[in-house]
Amino acid sequence: MKLLTYFFQWLMSLLWVVALQAQAQPTQPYSYPPSEVVRIHSKILNEERKVYVHCPKVDSADGNKRFPVVYVLDGDNHFELLAQYIDYLSRPDVLAIPKIIVIGISNTKRTRDLTPTNSLLNYEGKPDSSSYQGSGGNEHFLQFMATELMPMIDKNYKTAPYKIFAGHSFGGLSSLNCLLTHPDLFDAYIAVSPSLWWDKEYLLKMTDEKLKHGSALNKMLFFSDGNEGGRNSFFHKSLVKLEATLAKKKLKRLDYRYKHYPTETHMTEPVVAYFDALRFIFKDWEKQR
Amino acid sequence: MKLLTYFFQWLMSLLWVVALQAQAQPTQPYSYPPSEVVRIHSKILNEERKVYVHCPKVDSADGNKRFPVVYVLDGDNHFELLAQYIDYLSRPDVLAIPKIIVIGISNTKRTRDLTPTNSLLNYEGKPDSSSYQGSGGNEHFLQFMATELMPMIDKNYKTAPYKIFAGHSFGGLSSLNCLLTHPDLFDAYIAVSPSLWWDKEYLLKMTDEKLKHGSALNKMLFFSDGNEGGRNSFFHKSLVKLEATLAKKKLKRLDYRYKHYPTETHMTEPVVAYFDALRFIFKDWEKQR
Repeated sequence: MKLLTYFFQWLMSLLWVVALQAQAQPTQPYSYPPSEVVRIHSKILNEERKVYVHCPKVDSADGNKRFPVVYVLDGDNHFELLAQYIDYLSRPDVLAIPKIIVIGISNTKRTRDLTPTNSLLNYEGKPDSSSYQGSGGNEHFLQFMATELMPMIDKNYKTAPYKIFAGHSFGGLSSLNCLLTHPDLFDAYIAVSPSLWWDKEYLLKMTDEKLKHGSALNKMLFFSDGNEGGRNSFFHKSLVKLEATLAKKKLKRLDYRYKHYPTETHMTEPVVAYFDALRFIFKDWEKQR
Repeated sequence: MKLLTYFFQWLMSLLWVVALQAQAQPTQPYSYPPSEVVRIHSKILNEERKVYVHCPKVDSADGNKRFPVVYVLDGDNHFELLAQYIDYLSRPDVLAIPKIIVIGISNTKRTRDLTPTNSLLNYEGKPDSSSYQGSGGNEHFLQFMATELMPMIDKNYKTAPYKIFAGHSFGGLSSLNCLLTHPDLFDAYIAVSPSLWWDKEYLLKMTDEKLKHGSALNKMLFFSDGNEGGRNSFFHKSLVKLEATLAKKKLKRLDYRYKHYPTETHMTEPVVAYFDALRFIFKDWEKQR
């Protein structure tokens, strides 16, 4: 019994230390809205992938409501930003957009996953064998999204059919590639400063080839660029070409908007572009409510 | 000894249950950058106030560096947004602004604290005795900030002298009132859709009276409005008047910018305005680094 008494004394002294620390500490941790980290093994990519999930706070008025989903690439960079925007803009006293589930996809091999072709050319069209080794896996990555990730999310969370695909830079390239090759996967596409220079403007050529004049898409598309190299840069010119190509095609029901941010850099632009993209995609939702 | 054995068996079974739960749960909580809730008793306001504190993540390169501070009103609405912007925009691969400490002030009696005069008139100049009872405590509130809150923050966190005051609506009114009545408290002022209509445009009159023609302020000021009532509304007109008054005064070293967001509402505008305000305030920092 003596041992037990010692044990309890030790336990109590431990609690006492914890209590003293709490007294001496005048601050509490701040409660952020909860998000989750989910790990999924991909057979297609033959690796474990990490995704971040942020679900809207539901209240009694939501009942069994299901929510649109936005999938954002480069999850480590932009997941928190989108979750923050969506929480704020869907608040009852703001109501600019609906409540949305946010899925942020963390990278493993970014260049492999987010480029549509195998190319070793840099943005100036010059060979760069070190940076772009193993590029061209975007179709594989989209297969992972379509057949592994998205079904898992739909199974485990209260998802509505409406889906948005958002990406920046190579991520924007992936979003546009998906619109051309798997248009039915998503309802709206966001391409913030897509790297259209990739492989001698491969995706611009694809846009011209794949989209038939006057055809119906029934999608929304937001794309943008910042001050990458200025107004005469190849980067900006390729975005202008994309807009011209879409205009020329006279597509039915492709509701697109191109926005140029001359005062934002490649890295600051996503902050304002993701906000504008959400506002654009839900402009009619806001009017209709 | 038997009791001790039972106790350990019970303890082990408890751990086993926890381990089983962990196995059945494929998700982990997402780690947001830590922030704190601090409570401070104000003698001036005779109440306990809650503030949120977000400190930058420091690395070895920061050494004993101290950080500018932004104080944001309506902390429950905008603290997370500012913390998110600052974390992202100060990242080593973005570097548009420095690392900054964010202090979000939660409201108790918002109308009392954030209005400069006692008035019962609504935005149309008509009496509204129910909404604005007890208004006019802004000077008291600024005293609380200057003599209680700010010294406490400076004592407990690694603050640099550079301070920013940010507010929206009545919060924007408070920020402008502070610029006029206690200009030395902050280096930069942000007023997102300030309620300049308050008390028959009291603050516009004060601006005209207090600021001497050609005087030097050595401050930065960002102010803005959304589509509150449209281009011909009193709300928009009062902002235009503020800009005209500042222009007329030809002040030395008051670096100000007025931005109008015709597609944003009173509640969506802060999202983009706070971003633009941070970019404006640190435009030279970005160039100089």
